[in-house]
Amino acid sequence: VIFDLLLIGFGHVARRFVRLLDERADRLAADEGMTLRIVGIGTRRHGCIRAADAGAVDSGAALSAVESGRSLETVPGIVPAADALALLRDVAAQGDAARDGRLIVVETTVLDIARGRPAIDHVQAALGSGAHVVTANKGPAAFAYDALQAAAVRAGRRFRFEGAVMDGIPVFNLVRETMPLVAVEGFRGVVNSTTNYILTAMEGGREFADALAEMQAAGIAEADASLDVDGWDAAAKAAALANVLMGAGITPHDVARTGIGGLSRAAVQAAASSGRRIRLIASAARRADGLDVRVAPETLPETDLLASLAGGENALALRTDLLGELVLVQRDSGLTQTAYALLSDVVGVGRELTN
Amino acid sequence: VIFDLLLIGFGHVARRFVRLLDERADRLAADEGMTLRIVGIGTRRHGCIRAADAGAVDSGAALSAVESGRSLETVPGIVPAADALALLRDVAAQGDAARDGRLIVVETTVLDIARGRPAIDHVQAALGSGAHVVTANKGPAAFAYDALQAAAVRAGRRFRFEGAVMDGIPVFNLVRETMPLVAVEGFRGVVNSTTNYILTAMEGGREFADALAEMQAAGIAEADASLDVDGWDAAAKAAALANVLMGAGITPHDVARTGIGGLSRAAVQAAASSGRRIRLIASAARRADGLDVRVAPETLPETDLLASLAGGENALALRTDLLGELVLVQRDSGLTQTAYALLSDVVGVGRELTN
Repeated sequence: VIFDLLLIGFGHVARRFVRLLDERADRLAADEGMTLRIVGIGTRRHGCIRAADAGAVDSGAALSAVESGRSLETVPGIVPAADALALLRDVAAQGDAARDGRLIVVETTVLDIARGRPAIDHVQAALGSGAHVVTANKGPAAFAYDALQAAAVRAGRRFRFEGAVMDGIPVFNLVRETMPLVAVEGFRGVVNSTTNYILTAMEGGREFADALAEMQAAGIAEADASLDVDGWDAAAKAAALANVLMGAGITPHDVARTGIGGLSRAAVQAAASSGRRIRLIASAARRADGLDVRVAPETLPETDLLASLAGGENALALRTDLLGELVLVQRDSGLTQTAYALLSDVVGVGRELTN
Repeated sequence: VIFDLLLIGFGHVARRFVRLLDERADRLAADEGMTLRIVGIGTRRHGCIRAADAGAVDSGAALSAVESGRSLETVPGIVPAADALALLRDVAAQGDAARDGRLIVVETTVLDIARGRPAIDHVQAALGSGAHVVTANKGPAAFAYDALQAAAVRAGRRFRFEGAVMDGIPVFNLVRETMPLVAVEGFRGVVNSTTNYILTAMEGGREFADALAEMQAAGIAEADASLDVDGWDAAAKAAALANVLMGAGITPHDVARTGIGGLSRAAVQAAASSGRRIRLIASAARRADGLDVRVAPETLPETDLLASLAGGENALALRTDLLGELVLVQRDSGLTQTAYALLSDVVGVGRELTN
């Protein structure tokens, strides 16, 4: 079966995804019976294009255009569009892919984490025009999961976002696909890498500001790291987890949030020298008066699995009714892991439709 | 959709499974659109029965018969069969369930772990008669995975065995359902609880024989614990993992196996007092000359996640090409977890057929 992919966002993650598709094309065909072709690419700064004559975009040409700073409109055999939403309309209107459920929008735009935009608009528009949606953004699940999932069900399409938490390590797909009838009663995890790098470096003797600058110089933390440091990224992930796994119906603004900006080197080192570790913990638990979802630094005994995580390692413990507690640990992170999250969701959508 | 279940084996796990079906019947219907009914039960010591007139067995009556030491033939409305294989033939021949792919054999017999019998025979016969198979036994996947999986594909039926490793924590289903196109390059894990209990107790100062006797008195270790102590159980799990996830095509006899019987309290405590832990590790790795699959005690730094596991905790680290290393930790184990492994596989089979 041939699936048409429309990429909205064409940054590092999307470009690694395109190369991953190419690297795994043979196994996609052999193992999954799927052929994936890119029919359009929408960006904010490099233009929006779709293939002429309902064909496929020359993805190699698109990669080199953007990576050498040229507009996507220099790619041969394309038709330009005014913006991402216009592109989506044009692609959905041509051929049978949208009508037949063979059009998948792959959404990887830069996220305004305080509002979840523009990813939410893209997801909504895509579902409305008959496309499935796979996104690496946490905004849609963190801010609007119930509405978007309901829209997907109405449209008979899929809404997937495995990359929102712990990159490509299965979390949402794990629960949905392999833990039927299990109720998630709570979770605890380390889900933000930048703050974990900073805390690890502070244990090694660096001051907060130096540790942060080091992470920024190494490209691990953003130039504006406040969303990480203030706990916004972890709060968005906690909201996404609580919405999807526990039916919370919240936004990141409903998460009780304390960042790590108030931690001194002295405090971090005092904990470490008494056999404890400070980690930024995202958690949720059911209380008599509702769900308690929070992000805050916690002082943990060093025997705690979450305390043992260094640098970019993430982990998530799920408390469940039938299985007790299980923990997922991500040891390695990087562009390939995030790009794989998109690929695993695309294949998941394809499997459901070709089964 | 109504699925017919034929239970082969009706011990603690199967009986907990039957009660779990009852507890979750409403959610099975609402969330999965599945109705599960038990049409037959085969045991070695309590008889083999199927419901008369292609109906369902009164499972409450079957539970109380066996739990009060009576034969299943005392259950009203049943027809007896000579043995499990005859029962399977009778059930497959009646009605349309086998023909329509709505018959699932749930296999939980006592396993001869050195040969994988009789579970392998039951799986083979069930697939041959048009039933899907869900088993909690590791024998079939450890001794005959390739042949049984090929038989399942030929028959257009499913062969599932999530309970073979880490009870109901998704391992096989995790990789198959949520990690498409990922290659598993190796694994390391603590997968046998009895030996981990014994090692934990020895760290606390007990001699090997006392620790073993304690575990046996608590019902954690079998009266004949040699299969655990000598590493056979872990070797069977390692073989199952290597066969399914890495295409090894081996049996437990091909696993390089060292048990914990040779460990003295002095050795275990010496490791602990120098900040290390001895754990029985099952592992596999690709070498230039093929797969190296082994079970052996290893001395680990106490910061190693596998070293931190106490008592009945299990964990499995998977090394993969696209995701790097991920680790699954099982904190809680018990009858419900093992029974849930069966339930999750039954639902998984049902989902594939009703999708």
